[in-house]
Amino acid sequence: MKKLVNNPIKAVDEMIEGYVKAYPNYIKTVGENLRALVTAKETKENKVGVIIGGGAGHEPGFMGYIGTGFADGVPVGNIFASPPPDPILDITKEIDKGAGVIYLYGNYQGDIMNFGMAADLADLEADIRVETVRVTDDVVSAPKDRLEERRGIAGSFFVYKAAGAAADLGYSLDHVVRIANKANDSTRSMGVGLSPCSLPQTGEPSFELADHEMEIGLGVHGEPGLYKGEIRPAESIVNELMEHILADMPISRGEKVAVLVNGLGSTPQMELYIMFRSVAKILEDQGIIIYRSYVGNYLTSLEMGGCSVSLMKLDDELTTMIDHPADCAMFVQK
Amino acid sequence: MKKLVNNPIKAVDEMIEGYVKAYPNYIKTVGENLRALVTAKETKENKVGVIIGGGAGHEPGFMGYIGTGFADGVPVGNIFASPPPDPILDITKEIDKGAGVIYLYGNYQGDIMNFGMAADLADLEADIRVETVRVTDDVVSAPKDRLEERRGIAGSFFVYKAAGAAADLGYSLDHVVRIANKANDSTRSMGVGLSPCSLPQTGEPSFELADHEMEIGLGVHGEPGLYKGEIRPAESIVNELMEHILADMPISRGEKVAVLVNGLGSTPQMELYIMFRSVAKILEDQGIIIYRSYVGNYLTSLEMGGCSVSLMKLDDELTTMIDHPADCAMFVQK
Repeated sequence: MKKLVNNPIKAVDEMIEGYVKAYPNYIKTVGENLRALVTAKETKENKVGVIIGGGAGHEPGFMGYIGTGFADGVPVGNIFASPPPDPILDITKEIDKGAGVIYLYGNYQGDIMNFGMAADLADLEADIRVETVRVTDDVVSAPKDRLEERRGIAGSFFVYKAAGAAADLGYSLDHVVRIANKANDSTRSMGVGLSPCSLPQTGEPSFELADHEMEIGLGVHGEPGLYKGEIRPAESIVNELMEHILADMPISRGEKVAVLVNGLGSTPQMELYIMFRSVAKILEDQGIIIYRSYVGNYLTSLEMGGCSVSLMKLDDELTTMIDHPADCAMFVQK
Repeated sequence: MKKLVNNPIKAVDEMIEGYVKAYPNYIKTVGENLRALVTAKETKENKVGVIIGGGAGHEPGFMGYIGTGFADGVPVGNIFASPPPDPILDITKEIDKGAGVIYLYGNYQGDIMNFGMAADLADLEADIRVETVRVTDDVVSAPKDRLEERRGIAGSFFVYKAAGAAADLGYSLDHVVRIANKANDSTRSMGVGLSPCSLPQTGEPSFELADHEMEIGLGVHGEPGLYKGEIRPAESIVNELMEHILADMPISRGEKVAVLVNGLGSTPQMELYIMFRSVAKILEDQGIIIYRSYVGNYLTSLEMGGCSVSLMKLDDELTTMIDHPADCAMFVQK
């Protein structure tokens, strides 16, 4: 696959150089370390620090979420690979304001190991209290009775936003953790893949699909989904995704949700809105109220084709978190 | 090519249904006409109306730009085809607040004809004064001495934003027109294409490129560029684009610019930031100051691969316009 890169091995570092140059008011590195990014804004004393992260290749996740009301720091791994403990630890020390730090990331083995080590080191080396919430929104990645095995996909946007808002509101670490857990418990996602991406280093497709095939339930790194089959009309695909999501989610008529239809990288907005239209129709039919909508590329997989649907059920507390303004590079308004 | 659509002929209408459902606080239709979109917010009395538009397929252009400080109305054509005069006229009547209306669009034959007819009808039928500014930012689409033949591409974002800000500041129609013309005169763009898109109705690629080829100067509807050639490193491509842009643009050391690196639809953000990095390096070397950066999908061509670079030279007046807040669906912050 053709790519606008220079040296493929340096793609992540060069991207970060570009990001930092594009948004110097939002993002800076810890020292000279391109893989340890923190907010360029002044952060409040005694605010809980919010660190989110994971591999590169999911842009605007996670760098784009750095800013007021969202994340304070983002360690960046290689493409689709967890960051090592060092930048996580450096960021933790940099952003701690005495109220402790929360780590938020998708439930993947590499991240669990590396963020876990960083948390231990933060305690040992700097006496910083770190709590962790892992996102597990992908309904097809494990059955309902093994939630702890589920992976995190685009619904993590909701969990990160809720935690970022809670921290910005001055809540304690325990309080932020409780809200992040509630946000995760209230969020379900499922995706469909149409075409693979390829790593700049290899140029090889991340998975195989025939010309008229899609994969229902595909993960964001190409993890196998439920099945491969002939591509069907958008409405039929949405029906299937929503059936799984709603069957997994305790929600009733009259309750409200935030909706995210997330593009995986190369899906035109036109198609995302056509998908959203069917999501909205199903929710209307079931008497579930759409409180807020997000449609676009929030958590991508390089140039993967396809999209995912995420719902977060909103009680009053989570509504307050969703309503809380976030000012970060991803949402630059001017 | 695989697409998440239902009936391909209804793709544009279904997208708009999705858009309106996703952002009811931002966008509504004029009556039941899905192709005539206006702001859902209250607009000030005596504010100049701003209408931008063109074919569908360029999302978030142009629907996503509807909102306070940006566009008041957007007529939507079929994919890559101008809207007919009727929805333009309907929107004009709907948004006119007694101060007249400005039409802004890329310099394409179909748009010139249809917006021109709508302007005549607005005068005849409703005594509304309409002025027009056509965007001509694409430096390779015609030589410097035939500016009026140049096409409008992603730099139109800057022109629309400047005019939208001027109107929101309460300026007169003549004043808004002067600023829009200045913004257009101060903006230059050039693109590179890596892979085609396809219309949902035909599924046929919009142009042909071999596996290792790119096309320098490609237009947003697949109009031929300068030449096709082997793909090169990002930095080398940026050097070529910037050479054309800067040679065409009267700008000197110490002056400042807004920069837009715009994805054509399927280009990963990682690559856009790698391109931005090289743009920033060239500007730094030349002593030109980056006042604001935009990197992302601002004006796409369905799933076309590649990107464009746009610069707008900023004097104090245009800086004020760029700084003026815009609140529209494209920039939803929460």
